Amino acid sequence: MKKLAFILLLISGLARAQNEDDKQLKAIFDTALTEGMAYEWLNHLSNQIGGRLSGSVQAEMAVDYTKAQLDALGLDKVWLQPVMVPKWVRGVPEFAYMETSPGVTTNMDICALGGSVSTPLGGLKANVLEVQGIEELEALGKEKIAGKIVFFNRPMNAKLINTFKAYSGCVDQRAVGATEAGKYGAVGVIVRSMNLRLDDYPHTGNMRYGDEPVNERIPAAAISTNGAELLSTTLKLNPDTQFYFKQNCKQFDDVKSFNVIGEITGSEYPDEIMIVGGHLDSWDLGDGSHDDGAGCVQSMDVLRILQKSGYRPKRTLRVVLFMNEENGLRGGREYAKVAKANNEKHVFALESDAGGFSPRGFSFDASDANFEKVARWKKLFEPYLVHSFTKGGSGADIGPLKDEGIVLAGLRPDSQRYFDHHHAANDTFEHVNKRELELGAAAMASLVFLFDKYGVE
Amino acid sequence: MKKLAFILLLISGLARAQNEDDKQLKAIFDTALTEGMAYEWLNHLSNQIGGRLSGSVQAEMAVDYTKAQLDALGLDKVWLQPVMVPKWVRGVPEFAYMETSPGVTTNMDICALGGSVSTPLGGLKANVLEVQGIEELEALGKEKIAGKIVFFNRPMNAKLINTFKAYSGCVDQRAVGATEAGKYGAVGVIVRSMNLRLDDYPHTGNMRYGDEPVNERIPAAAISTNGAELLSTTLKLNPDTQFYFKQNCKQFDDVKSFNVIGEITGSEYPDEIMIVGGHLDSWDLGDGSHDDGAGCVQSMDVLRILQKSGYRPKRTLRVVLFMNEENGLRGGREYAKVAKANNEKHVFALESDAGGFSPRGFSFDASDANFEKVARWKKLFEPYLVHSFTKGGSGADIGPLKDEGIVLAGLRPDSQRYFDHHHAANDTFEHVNKRELELGAAAMASLVFLFDKYGVE
Repeated sequence: MKKLAFILLLISGLARAQNEDDKQLKAIFDTALTEGMAYEWLNHLSNQIGGRLSGSVQAEMAVDYTKAQLDALGLDKVWLQPVMVPKWVRGVPEFAYMETSPGVTTNMDICALGGSVSTPLGGLKANVLEVQGIEELEALGKEKIAGKIVFFNRPMNAKLINTFKAYSGCVDQRAVGATEAGKYGAVGVIVRSMNLRLDDYPHTGNMRYGDEPVNERIPAAAISTNGAELLSTTLKLNPDTQFYFKQNCKQFDDVKSFNVIGEITGSEYPDEIMIVGGHLDSWDLGDGSHDDGAGCVQSMDVLRILQKSGYRPKRTLRVVLFMNEENGLRGGREYAKVAKANNEKHVFALESDAGGFSPRGFSFDASDANFEKVARWKKLFEPYLVHSFTKGGSGADIGPLKDEGIVLAGLRPDSQRYFDHHHAANDTFEHVNKRELELGAAAMASLVFLFDKYGVE
Repeated sequence: MKKLAFILLLISGLARAQNEDDKQLKAIFDTALTEGMAYEWLNHLSNQIGGRLSGSVQAEMAVDYTKAQLDALGLDKVWLQPVMVPKWVRGVPEFAYMETSPGVTTNMDICALGGSVSTPLGGLKANVLEVQGIEELEALGKEKIAGKIVFFNRPMNAKLINTFKAYSGCVDQRAVGATEAGKYGAVGVIVRSMNLRLDDYPHTGNMRYGDEPVNERIPAAAISTNGAELLSTTLKLNPDTQFYFKQNCKQFDDVKSFNVIGEITGSEYPDEIMIVGGHLDSWDLGDGSHDDGAGCVQSMDVLRILQKSGYRPKRTLRVVLFMNEENGLRGGREYAKVAKANNEKHVFALESDAGGFSPRGFSFDASDANFEKVARWKKLFEPYLVHSFTKGGSGADIGPLKDEGIVLAGLRPDSQRYFDHHHAANDTFEHVNKRELELGAAAMASLVFLFDKYGVE
């Protein structure tokens, strides 16, 4: 009978805890949907500041603005963490055309890839060699590649439900296409934008030359998916078609910038640190609303929502707005470095950097024991249609914190529309839905609450 | 040992079936995402035809277009089912303003509610009485209401995750507000648009006078959510503010229209009929892309996707594009009436009428036995992030088919953005994402496949 009584007590205890958790999640979602600040903050970041490329005036304005907003929340601590960041500037105007026969030209929208060198002052014109990927270069060899512009045209795989997987399957063309083609004497590189939709927006994004000597680097730019289809068709009709492009980008010396950090110090375990974050920098073409203004304002609102919904964290909770995710990851690395130097114990880190769309779940980079623990919370999220808890992957900025003890997690919003906007001029505020943004913030606050309440294994 | 062998055989049989089902769903989703026609059809419906209010030229163009497209698919049968539909015409221009003091006016966008009578030729001007719902009218009584314009301003409840529930909690103001306020001598009714977002679009939608004598009917119109906030604030500052509106709508005699039907006759059980459908009519302000062009083209594509993915239904599968869901439901009623008269046995009906957004699940109006059966298929849908199988509700058009044997189901897409566009001028093609639309069609085709393969209880 004792055993039975104990079991009954245990069950009723669990049921009560579940019930309390249900209530707390409801309070969190109610607060986010009726008193959320994320959308208003994002409006300012996007429409009053705009694209926030590392080292730009806008990036510094974003640092000042978000710090001031965190100050106004009455957190226990708010500070700026200095970090040196690269400063690459696009330069305008960028300009390109196809020339099917001498003097017969069709203009084409283009954008330099982030980190690319400039073309010669007068631009660059050459014949075009279309390939479906880097792996084709070796077989083609110097003979066919030298002197040409290589056109990487492998599209994203439409069959993949998770569009980030389709992105991973293409992004090597953008990241190292120029360096690889340069080895065979190519004079420039054009990349099909990483976009599942056919439209007219060229999408930028980072590329890297590694340790390639500066004088051997060739310029790289993206064209839109419609542009890529047109160029490909044109080349089939007329393989002698030439491509001209001109860009005027420049890499400056590193400049000083900041991670923006705010903290609610833990009431019971102040030395156990949980962080929520996104990256404050963005590309320069749009206003960076989805990538990653959304993640920043959601992370800021996590602290505010918990405050408003009457929950005081036992563990220390920090919001970290990382600088320079897009073209350097300096902020993420610096944060981890300082944490290590200070012997800080981070137990949980959650990043939102996949757009401000309806939250579908979380991914976890965690031990089996911790993942099993998390999986038991799934039921709590089902009323909010947050169903998908997967293992593997979290966020770029929090990656450098990885060690045995910590649970890393990433918010996983619906991914279908993300690459329509990613790194392009149409990553803008009007494409963010207020409720979807708020639901994401609420899902994040809920997960933080549960980790705070129950700890990690 | 015999028993063990039997169990092992059973398990391996189940595993094989599951594996085959996984493969068929994969083929369906692959086909939808790479060879889908839904988006192209919707482009035509939306951009070449436009809003398709029952009785309009556009509705008839949509009948002709979709019939021709179904004819081109090489189905076993395609036909038009005649149905008489109401013909209400908005008339333009609609015009409204607030007058805070004589001659000091602020214009406000407005739209007549569907089915409303006209204002007097010169418009209607009166003082405004703001209420939060019909239930307030009785206490206010004739004394306070007579001669006024009643302004129904109860907003949708932002705390509800399912926005359709928030809609249900408000739509009585639109549907019967005019009749109820008219009983107390109101001269007109203004309704806050059913929209969770603050923006400038007035949203129309059906209202009904019931058996109220024609000469006692008062006109009703919607203003945008921003308009409602402005009017409400203005009334607080100046309760004597008057509202003027003018609309010129008219109810004509019923006209002949059609449900559009296509069929793949079942290879084994031709007498067991499954249908997929949406409604071909729409409101007149936008182009009806989400409501319900999306549901129509998804339903059409279900048959085509199954053909292309190599599946031949055992049961008869029909696509039904219903006419007149918005302001009469005549098409749905007629289809059910004819089915009954012909002694047809309908076993499964699936409707898509909740927008072309990412599919999140299905709702079922079914017996417990059938719902349990369906619940066992959930696992098959998880790779496509279709997680939510709920009991209760299906679709308005298929509702009249309800009887004991049939399973009724509704596609449930993400609902967060739906009411931003519903019945408004911004329900337009550019707000539909191609992949989201295609994923919905694939989810529908998958469910049809499973019901066809395994039957209903």
